[in-house]
Amino acid sequence: MDSEKLVRLAGELRAETIRIVSRTGGHLGSSLGVIELTLAIHAIFDTPHDKLIWDVSHQCYPHKILTGRRERMLGLRKKDGPSGFTRRAESPYDPFGAAHSSTSISAGLGFAMARELGGDPGDVVCVIGDGAMSAGMAFEAINNAGALGKRIFVILNDNAMSISPSTGAFATYLAELGARPGEERSFFAQMGFAYHGPVDGHDLPGLLEKLRSLREEATGPVLLHAITRKGAGYDAAETSADKYHGVAKFDVETGQQAKAAAAAPSYTKVFAGALVKEAEKDSRIIAITAAMEAGTGVDIFRRHFPDRAFDVGIAEQHAVTFAAGLAAGGMKPFCAIYSTFLQRGYDQIVHDVALQGLPVRFAIDRAGLVGADGPTHAGAFDVGYLANLPGFTVMAASDEAELVNMVATAAAHDSGPIAFRYPRGEGTGVAMPETGVPLPIGKGRVVAAGGTVALLSFGGRLGECLMARQMLATHGIPVTVADARFAKPLDTGLLEELYETHELLVTIEEGASGGFAALVLSHLAGRGLLDGHLGSRCALRTMTLPDRFIAQASPEEMYEDAGLSAHHIALLVRDVLAARSVVPLAARQLNGRHVRRVQVAE
Amino acid sequence: MDSEKLVRLAGELRAETIRIVSRTGGHLGSSLGVIELTLAIHAIFDTPHDKLIWDVSHQCYPHKILTGRRERMLGLRKKDGPSGFTRRAESPYDPFGAAHSSTSISAGLGFAMARELGGDPGDVVCVIGDGAMSAGMAFEAINNAGALGKRIFVILNDNAMSISPSTGAFATYLAELGARPGEERSFFAQMGFAYHGPVDGHDLPGLLEKLRSLREEATGPVLLHAITRKGAGYDAAETSADKYHGVAKFDVETGQQAKAAAAAPSYTKVFAGALVKEAEKDSRIIAITAAMEAGTGVDIFRRHFPDRAFDVGIAEQHAVTFAAGLAAGGMKPFCAIYSTFLQRGYDQIVHDVALQGLPVRFAIDRAGLVGADGPTHAGAFDVGYLANLPGFTVMAASDEAELVNMVATAAAHDSGPIAFRYPRGEGTGVAMPETGVPLPIGKGRVVAAGGTVALLSFGGRLGECLMARQMLATHGIPVTVADARFAKPLDTGLLEELYETHELLVTIEEGASGGFAALVLSHLAGRGLLDGHLGSRCALRTMTLPDRFIAQASPEEMYEDAGLSAHHIALLVRDVLAARSVVPLAARQLNGRHVRRVQVAE
Repeated sequence: MDSEKLVRLAGELRAETIRIVSRTGGHLGSSLGVIELTLAIHAIFDTPHDKLIWDVSHQCYPHKILTGRRERMLGLRKKDGPSGFTRRAESPYDPFGAAHSSTSISAGLGFAMARELGGDPGDVVCVIGDGAMSAGMAFEAINNAGALGKRIFVILNDNAMSISPSTGAFATYLAELGARPGEERSFFAQMGFAYHGPVDGHDLPGLLEKLRSLREEATGPVLLHAITRKGAGYDAAETSADKYHGVAKFDVETGQQAKAAAAAPSYTKVFAGALVKEAEKDSRIIAITAAMEAGTGVDIFRRHFPDRAFDVGIAEQHAVTFAAGLAAGGMKPFCAIYSTFLQRGYDQIVHDVALQGLPVRFAIDRAGLVGADGPTHAGAFDVGYLANLPGFTVMAASDEAELVNMVATAAAHDSGPIAFRYPRGEGTGVAMPETGVPLPIGKGRVVAAGGTVALLSFGGRLGECLMARQMLATHGIPVTVADARFAKPLDTGLLEELYETHELLVTIEEGASGGFAALVLSHLAGRGLLDGHLGSRCALRTMTLPDRFIAQASPEEMYEDAGLSAHHIALLVRDVLAARSVVPLAARQLNGRHVRRVQVAE
Repeated sequence: MDSEKLVRLAGELRAETIRIVSRTGGHLGSSLGVIELTLAIHAIFDTPHDKLIWDVSHQCYPHKILTGRRERMLGLRKKDGPSGFTRRAESPYDPFGAAHSSTSISAGLGFAMARELGGDPGDVVCVIGDGAMSAGMAFEAINNAGALGKRIFVILNDNAMSISPSTGAFATYLAELGARPGEERSFFAQMGFAYHGPVDGHDLPGLLEKLRSLREEATGPVLLHAITRKGAGYDAAETSADKYHGVAKFDVETGQQAKAAAAAPSYTKVFAGALVKEAEKDSRIIAITAAMEAGTGVDIFRRHFPDRAFDVGIAEQHAVTFAAGLAAGGMKPFCAIYSTFLQRGYDQIVHDVALQGLPVRFAIDRAGLVGADGPTHAGAFDVGYLANLPGFTVMAASDEAELVNMVATAAAHDSGPIAFRYPRGEGTGVAMPETGVPLPIGKGRVVAAGGTVALLSFGGRLGECLMARQMLATHGIPVTVADARFAKPLDTGLLEELYETHELLVTIEEGASGGFAALVLSHLAGRGLLDGHLGSRCALRTMTLPDRFIAQASPEEMYEDAGLSAHHIALLVRDVLAARSVVPLAARQLNGRHVRRVQVAE
């Protein structure tokens, strides 16, 4: 296709991207910023033989439209629809999936070295934003790629933003570099890359020419520095503060986004409000996040305490150890990071925080299943990876009032690290306390009294437990519902009491196995309470996320898929009780083997 | 103290450091490289009011000698002796502990910002090696520090080595920078630091003058580039390949290290040999490590397959995703990383490997307790953080022959990620197979038949289980010993059989809670086998690392401290059986509450 036709196609692709996202919602600004880059790369390189790897990949909508997925795009980010990110299972044009930031050069270098060693052939093109460059992982990859010296193309998509404007010294440097063509001793040249740029990332003929010549001539690692505008070509996006980073459905003419009426404040806002109140009382409270200011509510905190809010960029490793240093220096740092991204700081949590027993507070937003962003953004593993660390205190909020109290609990807790997790989205609409009150450490609470069955919830499934209780009441089954509040230290008194005084104990949590349920089982086993014929009469079940990744859908659909909704709880309870009741008591005591068969068949 | 006296003191400090390490073993080369830096910093800065943070901190011996710990240094790295690393609990002169690399600037920036906000006052000096600069975390910290612009001193201790010579493009760049005084547009200047250097890190009068002037004049972040020699001032160290990075006891005159006669090859060597054999048969096999070539045996692999061995530097995040890219490109990457350092790549394991189901092989050396390096190097958490990821296969080798078979198993396993862990140090001396044979996935094995008690071991405690079996045999208690081999998929058939046919089942592993034991309990609960009065007669106990960090000592002492030795196993078994036997069967069945009391008292 000639350059003129491609320019016309760019206009159509931009319009189509806007049209689709106006009807689906999603990541618009970043996709609009790479319309010309997308067309140029596909025109010059031979995908999928050549591997095109989008970093983060929320900018992949035009790429998806061009690579056979146009018809399905109205199902974007919905159940069974295309992912909002690249996904290997979805298309051969997506050689490497993403969603977390700054992985593309590492993955691309893997493909490049595989090619050199006789694996999949083809060129490798990585497109990485300037925001993603703040993560150390990108630096590690450049460091390695520069030394290996093999042919690989990295396109720096520089729009001076991540979700918000990029922060950090490197962003300032890139701005200088972008403004001064022909720099010889650029950072990238120092790192062994042939640096080309800056070029206008919206000048399609220019991009075509540049990529064509690079493709013909490159012998080693190449970095092409393309200056783009997030939201380019759509006024409503270009003039908005976040350049339509993530949008709801909207009116294409006016740019007006559909706004669902909120029934209750979001957990994020509740967290931010509670932290501000604590910070008014205690000047040592600091908020830290890693390029999630708006997502975590640290932007609200910043408005009240600009000197005490730190956005370190996409740099969770640094965020955690920076917080550890602040704590060692006498401050009370709250590190506000999504569950899924906190995984990036895991070693720092172990080595710099837990081992030293430093009182860093972790505010873990987006715990559990999160909806349209799918499995890459699920907060599934944090309870397991935190609660197994010596000295850690781990809480989960069952509603937004609890969250307020947990912020107060964390503020008051100086004797070691403490974490509290809470779901994405709106709270439950409960009455809110004026100010938070610190909770007694390691104590849960009984929320509703019952009899035969005890449901012990950790986190946001408490409402589902209460609904299950109602369902079971109609079958004449009395249910106690308790809120554990703490996974660690576990409320062992409450646990043992529930276990001793009920026929069936079920734990429920929005997390993978190895978390709350494992701690409950481990405690009961350690106390000898699970010993056959000696222990309680009580049956025992644990409900966690299943051992598979849950595909994107609405959060409700995802929990349905995961088997963690009220009716799943009620069904499990009825099945277990039914299996127990078919066996006369005498048989239960005398013929364990036979009884077990009955049970297993349930 | 004047400069001349300090120079004399440097000679004494160097001699004392050599004398001590010749008698204790430890990290010598890096400590010798910073004798002058240590003296200069302590002379110019006011520690502990000013915070001196050593990166990694294996170079801290002269610092410890100078700060009140000289008398205790002969207990270095031993039980109850000084740590081989800085440690907050040990001295106010250690404001931040370390052992993992590249954390110092993040922590130091935390102290600096705490100072600015009214916390602990004082200057902050971070000393970081050029090797540590390859980790993205250091880049993240520099990026943030440069942007915040507050006064902080970073001394780049550039000896062109990490454990081995530094790798990567940045190392090459630093070498250029070090050779060309007066560079204006250095990387550090680009990142917002005032760059000073290069200076001779062994010229004490020069260092004193430079640090004095920097201390007087600095208003923002400062980087002082000091060129040092690892092992400086001790011929035997300077002329050895690794500059005496880590040494056994040695003769000061000759430099000859004491070498204990090895009873069996190390797990590391066995792994390397097995991987070489597999690689001879399959050209797709690749070895990747992150600055642990000798430690993981990848150096041996490199000698056979130089093109297929990758040392990416201290960069675990990149290592994991690079491996994922290689796997996506059709290769069979083996990512060989210590358990404790693999924590650095956790998000990449979740997001790039597990979510995409890519067949990356993880060879996890140094699993469990590791001895003199202490709790910072313990491999305690990997089973939990890997086995809770959907689609992962997780194995542990109970001896070096098993390890050979697990390498073969991993090589043959193309359907998803797989990991195998093994201890530090020598194998058990078993007969070795000629070549590895792939194990059936998810199948354990009974090692010794018994009757009353079943010990189900996962990993290197199998020998202790067999010893416990002998001890218990003298008390007339017949014991079955089984080797689980797999934590995931669990051998549920074997598990249920053991559970149904014994009076007591005990699991044993060299890991924290949330790992193998949690998977066993979770399976039994899910099958209804733990239900009171309905399930098995069997009692159940789990033995894991306790919920505290285990202080440095010999590995044997550490396992003793952890309660995971043969006699602990035997004691637990006898106590549980004794508690059961005191209660007549009828009472057990009819009076659960009373019986439980008896049990709890055990």
